[in-house]
Amino acid sequence: MTKKLRLDPDRLLPADPAVRGVARELYASVKDLPIVSPHGHTDPRWFATDESWTNATELLLAPDHYLYRMLYSQGVPLDALGVPGRAGRSKADPRDAWRLFASHYYLFRGTPSRVWLDHVFAEVFGIDVALDATTADLYFDRVNEALTTPAFRPRALFERFNIELLATTEGAHEDLDHHAAIRRSGWKGRVITTYRPDAVVDPEHEEFADALRRFGEITGEDVQSWEGYLRAHRKRRADFRAAGATATDHGHPNPATADLSDAEKQPLFARVVGGSWTSEDAELFRAQMLTEMAAMSVDDGMVMQIHPGSFRNHNRWLHQHYGRDKGADIPQRTDYVRALKPLLDRFGNEPKLSIILFTLDESTYARELSPLAGHYPCLKLGPAWWFHDSPEGMRRFREMTTETAGFYNTVGFNDDTRAFLSIPARHDVARRVDCSFLARLVAEHRIDETEAAELARELAYDLVRRAYRLDEPHTLAA
Amino acid sequence: MTKKLRLDPDRLLPADPAVRGVARELYASVKDLPIVSPHGHTDPRWFATDESWTNATELLLAPDHYLYRMLYSQGVPLDALGVPGRAGRSKADPRDAWRLFASHYYLFRGTPSRVWLDHVFAEVFGIDVALDATTADLYFDRVNEALTTPAFRPRALFERFNIELLATTEGAHEDLDHHAAIRRSGWKGRVITTYRPDAVVDPEHEEFADALRRFGEITGEDVQSWEGYLRAHRKRRADFRAAGATATDHGHPNPATADLSDAEKQPLFARVVGGSWTSEDAELFRAQMLTEMAAMSVDDGMVMQIHPGSFRNHNRWLHQHYGRDKGADIPQRTDYVRALKPLLDRFGNEPKLSIILFTLDESTYARELSPLAGHYPCLKLGPAWWFHDSPEGMRRFREMTTETAGFYNTVGFNDDTRAFLSIPARHDVARRVDCSFLARLVAEHRIDETEAAELARELAYDLVRRAYRLDEPHTLAA
Amino acid sequence: MTKKLRLDPDRLLPADPAVRGVARELYASVKDLPIVSPHGHTDPRWFATDESWTNATELLLAPDHYLYRMLYSQGVPLDALGVPGRAGRSKADPRDAWRLFASHYYLFRGTPSRVWLDHVFAEVFGIDVALDATTADLYFDRVNEALTTPAFRPRALFERFNIELLATTEGAHEDLDHHAAIRRSGWKGRVITTYRPDAVVDPEHEEFADALRRFGEITGEDVQSWEGYLRAHRKRRADFRAAGATATDHGHPNPATADLSDAEKQPLFARVVGGSWTSEDAELFRAQMLTEMAAMSVDDGMVMQIHPGSFRNHNRWLHQHYGRDKGADIPQRTDYVRALKPLLDRFGNEPKLSIILFTLDESTYARELSPLAGHYPCLKLGPAWWFHDSPEGMRRFREMTTETAGFYNTVGFNDDTRAFLSIPARHDVARRVDCSFLARLVAEHRIDETEAAELARELAYDLVRRAYRLDEPHTLAA
Repeated sequence: MTKKLRLDPDRLLPADPAVRGVARELYASVKDLPIVSPHGHTDPRWFATDESWTNATELLLAPDHYLYRMLYSQGVPLDALGVPGRAGRSKADPRDAWRLFASHYYLFRGTPSRVWLDHVFAEVFGIDVALDATTADLYFDRVNEALTTPAFRPRALFERFNIELLATTEGAHEDLDHHAAIRRSGWKGRVITTYRPDAVVDPEHEEFADALRRFGEITGEDVQSWEGYLRAHRKRRADFRAAGATATDHGHPNPATADLSDAEKQPLFARVVGGSWTSEDAELFRAQMLTEMAAMSVDDGMVMQIHPGSFRNHNRWLHQHYGRDKGADIPQRTDYVRALKPLLDRFGNEPKLSIILFTLDESTYARELSPLAGHYPCLKLGPAWWFHDSPEGMRRFREMTTETAGFYNTVGFNDDTRAFLSIPARHDVARRVDCSFLARLVAEHRIDETEAAELARELAYDLVRRAYRLDEPHTLAA
Repeated sequence: MTKKLRLDPDRLLPADPAVRGVARELYASVKDLPIVSPHGHTDPRWFATDESWTNATELLLAPDHYLYRMLYSQGVPLDALGVPGRAGRSKADPRDAWRLFASHYYLFRGTPSRVWLDHVFAEVFGIDVALDATTADLYFDRVNEALTTPAFRPRALFERFNIELLATTEGAHEDLDHHAAIRRSGWKGRVITTYRPDAVVDPEHEEFADALRRFGEITGEDVQSWEGYLRAHRKRRADFRAAGATATDHGHPNPATADLSDAEKQPLFARVVGGSWTSEDAELFRAQMLTEMAAMSVDDGMVMQIHPGSFRNHNRWLHQHYGRDKGADIPQRTDYVRALKPLLDRFGNEPKLSIILFTLDESTYARELSPLAGHYPCLKLGPAWWFHDSPEGMRRFREMTTETAGFYNTVGFNDDTRAFLSIPARHDVARRVDCSFLARLVAEHRIDETEAAELARELAYDLVRRAYRLDEPHTLAA
Repeated sequence: MTKKLRLDPDRLLPADPAVRGVARELYASVKDLPIVSPHGHTDPRWFATDESWTNATELLLAPDHYLYRMLYSQGVPLDALGVPGRAGRSKADPRDAWRLFASHYYLFRGTPSRVWLDHVFAEVFGIDVALDATTADLYFDRVNEALTTPAFRPRALFERFNIELLATTEGAHEDLDHHAAIRRSGWKGRVITTYRPDAVVDPEHEEFADALRRFGEITGEDVQSWEGYLRAHRKRRADFRAAGATATDHGHPNPATADLSDAEKQPLFARVVGGSWTSEDAELFRAQMLTEMAAMSVDDGMVMQIHPGSFRNHNRWLHQHYGRDKGADIPQRTDYVRALKPLLDRFGNEPKLSIILFTLDESTYARELSPLAGHYPCLKLGPAWWFHDSPEGMRRFREMTTETAGFYNTVGFNDDTRAFLSIPARHDVARRVDCSFLARLVAEHRIDETEAAELARELAYDLVRRAYRLDEPHTLAA
């Protein structure tokens, strides 16, 4: 017998009736606020071309490493799920891949993917039966049919989702043509970019040499010289700001920073571009570049986001056969206190600088990050990230950061996703979990209901707009 | 006035009435499932000889480092508790030792030892008054009297406890005579062994030289040569499989692995057996041996258990006077991400390999272990272990692992105990805590009641049978 | 419209009605017990001179780095808040500073500072409107007016607060004149000192050379010689005991200990006093001095408190312009297992020694500290400290320590504050949170109500008196 799919209106709210009552009211006051998505990885091409997506597997499964990671851990081959490898597209039939996914959907019990997907199925597609082997075909057909209709094209969904702003992420060496096309099209949706220079900043990045070459071409600068390289960054940051960017993003193995003298920087850079660098050089160069980026942010006002702590592409065989970003990135212990000191010694008290710190190491929430953000004017805490972007992860984030950093040194929610259809689901989870936390504080008489209502709105909407400087003048260039 | 001892039927279930109601139903559905105990340290001699135990102190107190550790921390000498030292048996009278324990029983308030012991006293021995100084003699007499009866002999209790399978642990250099005797006896109880090669794998183990000598004798191999040493492992693994073993167990200071070339292995092994090794050699040898064990597991299908992170015998004086395993093992920070990579680079995607990871460092649950187990097909997560085998510890385990690893990359419960009488109590605690966690997910509408019921059974019974391959053909040899 | 300020009688108690009911009863049984404050940083001059405080800003805001830290993190300059810098007193008008604070009071929502301050405002000053920009002047006037009255002088408040004992902290090189004056005055309030030798033990302390000189002067010993230096410690420890001290306190960057031979100590000490030490020397000297202090404690019975893990004065610019202790101390990862071993190898089983361990790294609670304190007779766990002295922090402390260390290896509460008026608030929070934790154990049938009531009293009153040896003979000298 087919099981019903039904999203309970009280889902994720605390079980205790009195606390739930408070949470329900708080949630009701924020659930319809517009979505502000200041950090994510959707494809700007979708909004530039507004073409229909093809089918459920190619839209929902094959690009989503949150999903196939779990199936792979239980022995399901990636190729069978439609995931492309280095050798090319998967040979799997999309319907077969979907059936395989559906028959393993029970693996996601208790995970945020399950919450997000059920929301997508029920709210976006209007499906009212649960996904399993018996309903796989029904799902596949219903989704594919919907995707052919105008209501399911990217811009229509963007509007239906009530997205006020969506930031994508582009490399420093990449063109911004899709963003230009969006602006030229006259469509009112606000899709902005984010400056992500990792590929030209990290000598150990597999695309470093190629990215650096393109970085030189796109800027017309001699990026083999230190001064030319810095000029290229400044030019491109200006290009990105013209495409709406208000922020940069830095995905480093760790948050090491450095503040070298000019006499040290030049030979380091020479080794890096000369290809004769050691692993210590690579580390030091990344560290110095965070400080250089901070210096430029002091000038141009772009907010820095630092996302450290992931050991990328940990599975060697998988990396060789399937490439980057295939669900094999593993967090590692991260230390912020000494790592950030060189940058903070130079810019820590600079009023114009704003740095948003993220972590994959929850042990740093209460120990390092909250004391840092609760003191330094330039530091704020990004939301629970990646593996911790989940009901329990968000709850721990609030429990471990609020008492030292308060709410006002945090920056609202990031969905950080390439799964566009899940954006409303993800923001909905964040709003529910934050309202639940606030409701507990009310129930324990630590804040009153008026304060809780103000905070619920700050966490859902206001903080993110201020933290990412979305209304400041420099963001209006276009 | 004597206090009553009464086990509340709702103990360890959540306080909220609605959540408790769900938890109660889930628990009712699993509480009578047979006990599967795939990892522990009971003495196979008990089941081979089926002799009566002697008295409460020698059965329950003197061998249990969970208990005398706490009393020692409050200044009670071990000798007075009946704990044997290197110089021989304790000089304490068993009744005096028991009285001393009883008068300090309040120290265990809030600890799992208290929960387990009260369960043993009430359920196994039928005692209905609480243990304290005034009831010490009553307890001592009642327990001792019971132990003289046939109903309290090891096999009778095994059957009364509804144990479907019990695994003991034997060293690679030790004989399996008791297991052979159990099988010869015709008794139907399924008691299997586990292959634990630590003493012949760790040059820093105090018994290494002696254990290696016995390893050579018992296998007839030249264990001074690398090839002979590996052959000895293969022979003994086959012996252990014949005695029912489906798993190996590796208690290392940390989870370091290595994948050396043959040209590197030979001289390392020569230093190790030659006694000229450094502490780095010892570390590297243990690391390489985990990879060798994995290679053999790919061949013979034995599940690997890795138990890292304990600083053994931390108290120097105590170790000198009382020997190993006297409650002075202290967990330390453990890093898995780089440590496991050499082994995973070689075997991480191998379908036949299964490795169960344990930890004493809870900060790795969400950060390292769940992302690893939620990706690699060969990795699964062992349950909350040792100091974390407790109501709060198990709750944190589920809260920090489920969202990334799901339930299906975990392996059910291990009691890991030498305290045979506490086995039902320990499994009961695990079932109650898991059902409580599931009930919260139901109350928060994250899973439905049907799913919760399926998961409750998986966590109590099914997962452990699959994870330890208890029904696969190679386990039936005998 | 002005908002009411009202402390709910059930604040901080669990929301669930049944659990709250138990918590309420437990709390009622301990809320009026005398306050024992064995560790803090109030100024003994207050009680020696019994002079009135001046105004709200100078009493409550300018000295409290918990408060201005948060405002500074949001861009408020310290000078504007009345905080003195190295150049001298703040130029801000105290009323303006108070208004600035009041208008940012919303930043403290969800923090313990908010809970403490509201308690001070409502209970100590009897104010019944909430603090914000509109009530800033009302507060400033009401507080200042109260401070002019006899009821608000230090000794009167001490008595009103029902403080049974208050320990201050003085440096090994500092005089104890205020304590002598208190005793001479005939006032019955028990204010004792604590021996804190950091400034003469840490070569990296900015006052080391000066403090060492004064240490020599005050003791009349040749502190440039190792034996004279040790004699000086012994003399001063005796002086401190005569001023009521029962404990020493050691604030080190980490808990490293050492146990060097005499042949190693002498040259190390020579480098340290000669000013030719390296950073490794400084580390080793601090480490050795913890062991020397332990040796003296074995002789004189003073309880050692070790407070490790803070990176002091992290903000370079702020340290240069405002000096030490300005809210820029950041916790860092701390490892105890290897660090403490040299000291424990020498004294770990010594019955007369008692060491209270604190941490800023919560990941060590369950992993390292509870197993250590749950085994070694000389170790106990200090309460949740500094950033973790908060409702969530205390709850995590109990959840992560009780199952392994029990309650009886903990030592009650420390307020650790220089904010004298907040002492009742801080102890009240601790009592509420501990009673809430106990109530959950009762609700989950892990302890019974009688046990909970005994434990509530132990945690609020009895444990601290035993742990700090407040009734032992050596404390009665005066």
